[in-house]
Amino acid sequence: MKTKELSAFQLIVIFYLSALIFSTLILKIPFALRPNAKLSFIDAMFTAASAVSVTGLSVVSIKDTFNNFGILLLCLILQLGGLGVMSLSTFLWVMIGKKVGLKERQLLMIDQNQSNLSGLVQLAKRIFIIFISFEIIGGIILGICFLKYYGNVSTAFKHGFFAAISAATNAGFDITGESLIPFHNDYFVQTIVMLLIIFGAIGFPVIMEVYEFFITYKDKKKFHFTLFTKLTTLTFVVITIIGAIFIYLLDLQHFFVDRGWFDSIFYSLFHSVTSKSAGLATTDVNEFTPSNQVFMSFLMFIGGSPSSASGGIRTTTFAIVILAIVFYAQGKGSIKIFKRELKAEDVLKSFIVMTTGAFLCLVSIFILSMTEQGTIIEVIFEVSSAFGTNGLSLGLTPKLSSFGKVLIIILMFIGRVGIVTCLSLLRGKGSTETFHYPKEKIIIG
Amino acid sequence: MKTKELSAFQLIVIFYLSALIFSTLILKIPFALRPNAKLSFIDAMFTAASAVSVTGLSVVSIKDTFNNFGILLLCLILQLGGLGVMSLSTFLWVMIGKKVGLKERQLLMIDQNQSNLSGLVQLAKRIFIIFISFEIIGGIILGICFLKYYGNVSTAFKHGFFAAISAATNAGFDITGESLIPFHNDYFVQTIVMLLIIFGAIGFPVIMEVYEFFITYKDKKKFHFTLFTKLTTLTFVVITIIGAIFIYLLDLQHFFVDRGWFDSIFYSLFHSVTSKSAGLATTDVNEFTPSNQVFMSFLMFIGGSPSSASGGIRTTTFAIVILAIVFYAQGKGSIKIFKRELKAEDVLKSFIVMTTGAFLCLVSIFILSMTEQGTIIEVIFEVSSAFGTNGLSLGLTPKLSSFGKVLIIILMFIGRVGIVTCLSLLRGKGSTETFHYPKEKIIIG
Ligand SMILES: [K+]
Ligand SMILES: [K+]
Repeated sequence: MKTKELSAFQLIVIFYLSALIFSTLILKIPFALRPNAKLSFIDAMFTAASAVSVTGLSVVSIKDTFNNFGILLLCLILQLGGLGVMSLSTFLWVMIGKKVGLKERQLLMIDQNQSNLSGLVQLAKRIFIIFISFEIIGGIILGICFLKYYGNVSTAFKHGFFAAISAATNAGFDITGESLIPFHNDYFVQTIVMLLIIFGAIGFPVIMEVYEFFITYKDKKKFHFTLFTKLTTLTFVVITIIGAIFIYLLDLQHFFVDRGWFDSIFYSLFHSVTSKSAGLATTDVNEFTPSNQVFMSFLMFIGGSPSSASGGIRTTTFAIVILAIVFYAQGKGSIKIFKRELKAEDVLKSFIVMTTGAFLCLVSIFILSMTEQGTIIEVIFEVSSAFGTNGLSLGLTPKLSSFGKVLIIILMFIGRVGIVTCLSLLRGKGSTETFHYPKEKIIIG
Repeated sequence: MKTKELSAFQLIVIFYLSALIFSTLILKIPFALRPNAKLSFIDAMFTAASAVSVTGLSVVSIKDTFNNFGILLLCLILQLGGLGVMSLSTFLWVMIGKKVGLKERQLLMIDQNQSNLSGLVQLAKRIFIIFISFEIIGGIILGICFLKYYGNVSTAFKHGFFAAISAATNAGFDITGESLIPFHNDYFVQTIVMLLIIFGAIGFPVIMEVYEFFITYKDKKKFHFTLFTKLTTLTFVVITIIGAIFIYLLDLQHFFVDRGWFDSIFYSLFHSVTSKSAGLATTDVNEFTPSNQVFMSFLMFIGGSPSSASGGIRTTTFAIVILAIVFYAQGKGSIKIFKRELKAEDVLKSFIVMTTGAFLCLVSIFILSMTEQGTIIEVIFEVSSAFGTNGLSLGLTPKLSSFGKVLIIILMFIGRVGIVTCLSLLRGKGSTETFHYPKEKIIIG
């Protein structure tokens, strides 16, 4: 491969594609399947794409198709997808003693949206260790909780670990056959799952900065969070709360009409959190009104933080677009927030990402409306879910035609890899930007 | 009024608001109504807002509520809305012998998106004369066509002139009680109406340039159309054709399943043209599939050309956003088209207009979903129709609550006045922009 002639963006996509092909082949291993279970090539590829992109949409029932070995393989693919192909491969590279070169660091840098090269290997290690630790702790807690639901210890812990991995990687797959609906009254389980989901969706840079904040023993006052972390976290919290309020209000006369306030808060909050990217659910989303389903589609389209296990246009992109509108209306030439200024090129990038994502989804919706047997609401929901690598569905997934499956695979792929990377594929290596101002950088998409 | 302390943008809005109040009061004149017909204040205001913004949504039946005198008043309001409050008032100003001062020219300049002050009065005169000429010619042709539909000459010409005015101003009101459905087999009438609609929606600057092209007897080779006219016209044609193709394909298995090709072409093309801004229809739009209704909502959201009788984000805005994405993907710093370069501030403005319009519509859709008794598709269609000053409806309009009526009035108002002007309301007079490059200017929103 003439890697020197390929741009870093193109290499990222090649790595993801390799992971997709590798995962497809792995899932086709006959002894990963239950006796009598069948998995066609397109369905294996769909499951692989869904796992690598940590989407969780599925054309087959995971629990009826895969045996324990298959589920273990699936968990490994989820790690690959959740941690990012780049982080993981770099980590493995270091582990087996190879030196990480400039080229690989560049790849990792773009994959994690980092803008300086130093400390990236260290970063990848930390991400991996912190991530696995959270999954193990989550798995143990959920395993203990599940003891009262499942007959024996091994089944309880199998379900506990799968749920923890599915939540932390924001994959949203389930082996219960009905997501988290069996635990719709178990607020402790839901709280743990929500924390794991937020951990996976809030973004690695945020987690690393919080981690650094805690290990900085002296001079806590000297430590300051970056603009990116402040903006991302604030946006994440605001979207989650507003999302929960709208989900509640849009179903005030229907789903929530006879429910107590505690029950209502948990249903609203959980589905706002899960609409970011996770795709787990404590009720069949068909229970919500069509208006709410369209609203949740919008939340899924936005997705989670950049550099996280989530998809969509990302929360930060959305925040910058809103800020740009507000500052434009005030006649101000630049966006000032948290005593920093946003770069003009980042603002343009945000608009590009949002509008490209919107057009991509709209065109997909209209095409699938022609080719698939589903209502327009089901199609809107499915497309948003794929692009947001979310995994919630109104039930269209198993009914998709082969063409529909391929289009959804492409959407999951673009949603996970990101619009900027995908657009840059069309670009050569020596491309230049014209916008250059000496301002603080922020991560987009 | 301390006009010196008000920005030109604020004055434009005040003028439009005055037209709204004036029109509301005019429509409340008792002898404009049919015997026994009632018109509440909010309904009069809704009708006035719909007429001033040339939207055509109506909470009452025009033919059952207004007598001939009322319909004549409505026609006059449509002229006010269609030609633009500014052009008309400037024209009247000149007619009654007053000199047009710098301040008024500035207003007219902003209302018509013109960027130089000279020749504006001349322009307003020409617009008025050309516009009225087209309406009269259209009215006579349609009047003759309608002779075979209506018993007597005066009724035929009343319908002919009303249809011509409704089409040319892109108002979309009807006095048939069922839009153009009575003429769904009359391709000649439909062709005339489409031409009048396109005339009203293609934009005054385009019409003026074409007019100038024709009156330039010698040196036709030296005459060159501006970048704006080229881009606007190309975009208009492309969106209309693609729109017609999608409308056809989305209903291939339903509305078009048993129709001949000539019939299908006319239905597709007419509804693509009318979705720009006119809002007239040759069939009940409920006949189309929900997917097609969502697609038409998208067309209505885009609207027609800037500086025309249409609303929405405008075709040019849409085109620039698409171009920006394509050029960004290619890694190019600036947008080059027709051997000209777009200004960076115009590109930013296009993104601002599109995203602000999208958020405005989305928020309105979710709010109306809570307050109104209609399906989500009906609400999406109604909101897009109001913002695009279109007037097509799935039937929600007469069922709107008072709150719903007020929100739709606001959307029609913003759709007609334009996002840029509305956003600028929040701005003071001495606002500055930071983006300044020596490139050719283009009109946005
Ligand atoms: K997911
Ligand atoms: K209209």
